[in-house]
Amino acid sequence: MGQAKNAFYAQSGGVTAVINASACGVLQTARAHPKKIANVYAGSNGIIGALTEDLIDTSQESDEAIAALRNTPSGAFGSCRYKLKGLEENRAEYERLIEVFKAHNIGYFFYNGGGDSADTCHKVSQISQALDYPIQAIHIPKTVDNDLPVTDNCPGFGSVAKYIAVSTREASFDVRSMAKTSTKVFVIEVMGRHAGWIAAAGGLAADEDNDIPIVILFPEVEFDQARFLAKVKKHVENSGFCSVVVSEGAHWPDGKFLAEQGTRDAFGHAQLGGAAPVVANMVKEAFGYKFHWAVADYLQRSARHVASKTDVEQAYAVGKAGVEFALAGENAIMPTIVRSSNKPYKWEVGKVSLADVANVEKFMPRDYISEDGFAITDACREYLLPLIAGEDYPPYKNGLPDYVVLKNIAVSKKLDKSFEL
Amino acid sequence: MGQAKNAFYAQSGGVTAVINASACGVLQTARAHPKKIANVYAGSNGIIGALTEDLIDTSQESDEAIAALRNTPSGAFGSCRYKLKGLEENRAEYERLIEVFKAHNIGYFFYNGGGDSADTCHKVSQISQALDYPIQAIHIPKTVDNDLPVTDNCPGFGSVAKYIAVSTREASFDVRSMAKTSTKVFVIEVMGRHAGWIAAAGGLAADEDNDIPIVILFPEVEFDQARFLAKVKKHVENSGFCSVVVSEGAHWPDGKFLAEQGTRDAFGHAQLGGAAPVVANMVKEAFGYKFHWAVADYLQRSARHVASKTDVEQAYAVGKAGVEFALAGENAIMPTIVRSSNKPYKWEVGKVSLADVANVEKFMPRDYISEDGFAITDACREYLLPLIAGEDYPPYKNGLPDYVVLKNIAVSKKLDKSFEL
Repeated sequence: MGQAKNAFYAQSGGVTAVINASACGVLQTARAHPKKIANVYAGSNGIIGALTEDLIDTSQESDEAIAALRNTPSGAFGSCRYKLKGLEENRAEYERLIEVFKAHNIGYFFYNGGGDSADTCHKVSQISQALDYPIQAIHIPKTVDNDLPVTDNCPGFGSVAKYIAVSTREASFDVRSMAKTSTKVFVIEVMGRHAGWIAAAGGLAADEDNDIPIVILFPEVEFDQARFLAKVKKHVENSGFCSVVVSEGAHWPDGKFLAEQGTRDAFGHAQLGGAAPVVANMVKEAFGYKFHWAVADYLQRSARHVASKTDVEQAYAVGKAGVEFALAGENAIMPTIVRSSNKPYKWEVGKVSLADVANVEKFMPRDYISEDGFAITDACREYLLPLIAGEDYPPYKNGLPDYVVLKNIAVSKKLDKSFEL
Repeated sequence: MGQAKNAFYAQSGGVTAVINASACGVLQTARAHPKKIANVYAGSNGIIGALTEDLIDTSQESDEAIAALRNTPSGAFGSCRYKLKGLEENRAEYERLIEVFKAHNIGYFFYNGGGDSADTCHKVSQISQALDYPIQAIHIPKTVDNDLPVTDNCPGFGSVAKYIAVSTREASFDVRSMAKTSTKVFVIEVMGRHAGWIAAAGGLAADEDNDIPIVILFPEVEFDQARFLAKVKKHVENSGFCSVVVSEGAHWPDGKFLAEQGTRDAFGHAQLGGAAPVVANMVKEAFGYKFHWAVADYLQRSARHVASKTDVEQAYAVGKAGVEFALAGENAIMPTIVRSSNKPYKWEVGKVSLADVANVEKFMPRDYISEDGFAITDACREYLLPLIAGEDYPPYKNGLPDYVVLKNIAVSKKLDKSFEL
């Protein structure tokens, strides 16, 4: 193996339509440098795979299978929701990681996730120094919530934004057709518990060619029922119909989510609903308008069939850049998307120290939300449009997207000890 | 105008991703025969437009705009939910229709809808004879529910089926990625109050390349909670996760829909929910599995962005054939899709007398549903696959589908009397 080290790659947190495109960027770039990176071991189900020494041997996958990752949504190696504690609280976990990395001659740590995993990645780089086992830890950004700091945007977001913009436009065409005698209000619930980026994308459904009345309920704006109802009524009276985009994070002034209506089933059990039916019923009760509502949930973040070309390219680019930065000797950084021009849209990959990323959340700027709190501004539109630009269709087979399923062959374990999570 | 008569065209009931493709077929074919069809007047908001003499002058639309209808979902002229009563109960409505048709020299009646509108169309042809004002009444089939008799399938269904199959596959990839530490069960609710055709399409998400455990809850099968829960548990234990496709029409043995759980909000108001959260909460309560759920609602029937090519072609073909049948002297018929071969898939347009269509609903054959009631059979798969075959992407502009919005210019009214609906 000479000087070549192995690399570890893992997917973390909620998956996206393009996180596998980042994996593709990592794996193809690593394969192009066999003298420096011998093999890439993927964590089975994210970082848990490193802790339990459940590693996947990516060299067993064909070049075709790796290339197909670019077109495949979700996490091909499995992801997990598992936040490592602080170094002081649970040093054992970090020591175990280093132990596993040592056993498998791993010199590169590529962690593909959001804010929490940037923090973990940062700590791994710190402990590797402390334990004198050098690991280059690079964080590959991924999150549909678009809430990582410094980077102009996060891979994963552009495709959700496109899905929500497209779906809101299509459903708005539908309700407009039906409004004369039937449905007048359509409500779509979207993800984004803290930041309203995804909700904002619903606003793109309307433009100069498409006069669609849309009311957006952002998590950044406290819900005001009277003003909301008045807005919907005005739209229905003027246009005959209205579409409402409600963020799952929309909440009352006291912080309680709209979705938590204290709803109970016939047996008195608390019932988990969604914000969409709550809002729709509110409109019905106030004005009697017939309504329909949808909850997009996982459909929005897995919709590779309508992914943004920009997003796919950027997801691939940050994976590729992560490996290239590592090969250039970088450590404890995250590749970023840097927007250099809006018209025409130009971007390049930059980098930021993980110390400046970890545990910082990016919200919508106030000037991206209209004064009345129910719409997006032109500045927001200008920011969002390039991110949903372009189509990048997956191949189809028998009328369905032909997504790859990897073999995911395990690497033989080398450690005696198992590890209790 | 010579011998040329005008034609009337209207869209009825719930709209689809391809009903405008049928409109395109009607309008382009009519435009190709100016000596026989002078102009096509569209009903503004369906048949209501004929009753209130709100007609749209389609000759004001450019050839480009008419061509773009093929790529545009929903009803470009507006639709309505308005069922004409029987001839005996409300003869006045039918007489009014004839009066409006007479005033505008209309000799062809093209009605684009489902079972109810086939019935209306049939009655229009009867009364036109009785009142001695000859109208050729042709019904153009359209329904996402796929429940019209005689025709092999209904335009509109194939695209919903494709959307649900694609979405179920994508979301299943997502939940599989998350299952180790997070979501284990994903539930998607689909349309189809009486017939399980759309739910069946969810079963296509799994195939020989995609080992996805799917449980389908059909309206044709009485819900058995214990057997359902056991099935989900088995899948989660064997595969780590499970996807559930629940029809909005899924119901208990006593006929009560799953969605009607007697849910009440904090104020004691009955709350309209969906079947998906009910089913998801049921699983959670039994086994503690973390779940996610989606309700596709209008998104599924307006999703022109992922329409089936077969469906678009068939929707156009029945519109075109409707006009050609009329020009050949036919009356009181509906063009049908006739399947002549499965492998390779071959189809042609046939016809059926409206007397044989009106008020007959087509359900899933029992041999399309597996013995245990939770899956589709190979026979069902063989029937469904050709209907979702092929992609037919709309043009995009600024990252969004570039759907046409017609000018919809009104025809001057000729009658003194208005009409009370």
